[in-house]
Amino acid sequence: MPTLGIDLGGTFARAAVVDGKGEILASAKVAVQDRKPQGVVETIAQAAEEAVKQSGVKVDGCGVGAAGQIHKDTGVISVAPNLGWRDVPLAAMLTKRLGFDVKVVNDLSAAAWGELHAGAGRGAQDILVVFVGSGVGSAIIADGRLVQGGGGVAGELGHIKVVPGGRLCGCGEHGCLEAYAGGHNLIAQTKELLASGGSPVLEQLTNGDPYTITPVTLETAAEAGDAKAREIHARAAQFLAVAVANYVTVLNPSRLVLGGGVLTHCPGIKRLVLDGVQQWASRVSREGLLIADAELGDDSGIIGAALLVK
Amino acid sequence: MPTLGIDLGGTFARAAVVDGKGEILASAKVAVQDRKPQGVVETIAQAAEEAVKQSGVKVDGCGVGAAGQIHKDTGVISVAPNLGWRDVPLAAMLTKRLGFDVKVVNDLSAAAWGELHAGAGRGAQDILVVFVGSGVGSAIIADGRLVQGGGGVAGELGHIKVVPGGRLCGCGEHGCLEAYAGGHNLIAQTKELLASGGSPVLEQLTNGDPYTITPVTLETAAEAGDAKAREIHARAAQFLAVAVANYVTVLNPSRLVLGGGVLTHCPGIKRLVLDGVQQWASRVSREGLLIADAELGDDSGIIGAALLVK
Repeated sequence: MPTLGIDLGGTFARAAVVDGKGEILASAKVAVQDRKPQGVVETIAQAAEEAVKQSGVKVDGCGVGAAGQIHKDTGVISVAPNLGWRDVPLAAMLTKRLGFDVKVVNDLSAAAWGELHAGAGRGAQDILVVFVGSGVGSAIIADGRLVQGGGGVAGELGHIKVVPGGRLCGCGEHGCLEAYAGGHNLIAQTKELLASGGSPVLEQLTNGDPYTITPVTLETAAEAGDAKAREIHARAAQFLAVAVANYVTVLNPSRLVLGGGVLTHCPGIKRLVLDGVQQWASRVSREGLLIADAELGDDSGIIGAALLVK
Repeated sequence: MPTLGIDLGGTFARAAVVDGKGEILASAKVAVQDRKPQGVVETIAQAAEEAVKQSGVKVDGCGVGAAGQIHKDTGVISVAPNLGWRDVPLAAMLTKRLGFDVKVVNDLSAAAWGELHAGAGRGAQDILVVFVGSGVGSAIIADGRLVQGGGGVAGELGHIKVVPGGRLCGCGEHGCLEAYAGGHNLIAQTKELLASGGSPVLEQLTNGDPYTITPVTLETAAEAGDAKAREIHARAAQFLAVAVANYVTVLNPSRLVLGGGVLTHCPGIKRLVLDGVQQWASRVSREGLLIADAELGDDSGIIGAALLVK
């Protein structure tokens, strides 16, 4: 029987009815207006009911992918920064509201699960998924099973330390990979460079307007030969590459799936990361390693959440 | 029924009869003289038969922990540097010789399994074991299962890159953690320092004889205030600490087990590593993390190998 997948973000709840092969049969999206737990449960229920109605089929289970730290056994969300939640028993609340079993997992774990079963990971049992978007995240599948960690927060690649005591990260700690290479921080660093007046190329590209800056702006400036833009760009790419290479060395995945906005829209960074993995992952861990682009785009999480219920 | 555990090194094969609780009932050790596969199989069989005879019990299965890269499903040893082997089907050869099922795994995986079930990991399901001895190695248990990787070589923490393009490592690559922080390389760096004439303290400690140097010599010189010895010592400790902290961040183990000669005999390095993990592992990954010393010493591998057969 098909199942429901939910992608819970800070602004929308998306619901999809997904069949056993990972095909979306119908979907619906409802804006999150009331961010209090009970309000969000209602929003999810609306989206879910709409999707089920459109699909014309019955469903028997629901998986939710949500940004944040989630206790793997209970489905309690310990911290969800974009909703301002702490310790919300979302799985229990939704189970009560929807009338069937609900499983809640981290959004990246859901996305990795989707890519594993219906996307770029198909056929592999040991897979590492790395997403570089606004933040840097990852998920690990070992021998076909999701590695969640004792507290359910495994995969936080964005928060490994690359410069002990370095740049302040959004998490409140210093020197995290994400503080150098996450999209949000690439923009911040590029804005700092523009404000410093040290980059004529950037001045020209943006007409002096910091609000036009995206990671692509940085890459364009770097590739146009701007020394300081190139420094930020190269440093981000090298930190990412060494981190991913080291991750491959210790986990020895048979497949590495790369996705996320920065890697999708900044081919220069992606090329440096790919070259770096070839150069810096240990020889034995690279043997038999296949590198693939994420295939499901924004649907990976919703498909994965639905498939995780099985 | 008890099982056999084998610890296969470059100089000895040790065999032990181990009960279901991880207690050693009897053991035997035979020197490896003929390093050719058939010779080693005979040596193992002698040690195994002796251990079984001494124990006075019957056994029904055998696990082997061996240094090297081992294909997890077939028990073929792809590379065993200390025996000079490539592609040796050890599991099949031993099964034929001993007459019952034989499983072959990496020695560190075996040691981690031993610590999990009969040592410092008891009661935990998500455990990271890090050994710093001559080399730097690790093993990962996720949700009670050994993470082996697609090619069976997961856990090679010693070969993550800490200085891309840096010191040459024994593996033939540059800038590996082990090249800075493994015991063998701590000795090599200390010898280089002595030979350079740049360390009066080291000169005095060794009477100018490089053959007396161990990692403890380096720590003694560093703690006596020798600037250059302290540099090597602090760098090794920091690289280890950041590596272990980052590993904790991405895997979120509930228990971290530390062992191996360098961590056991150099309390200064160990203290810096422990401080670094507290400082650099992400806050959420540290919540609920228990750090423990390996308990089984040299027996962890043999006990783990025996228990892995079950």
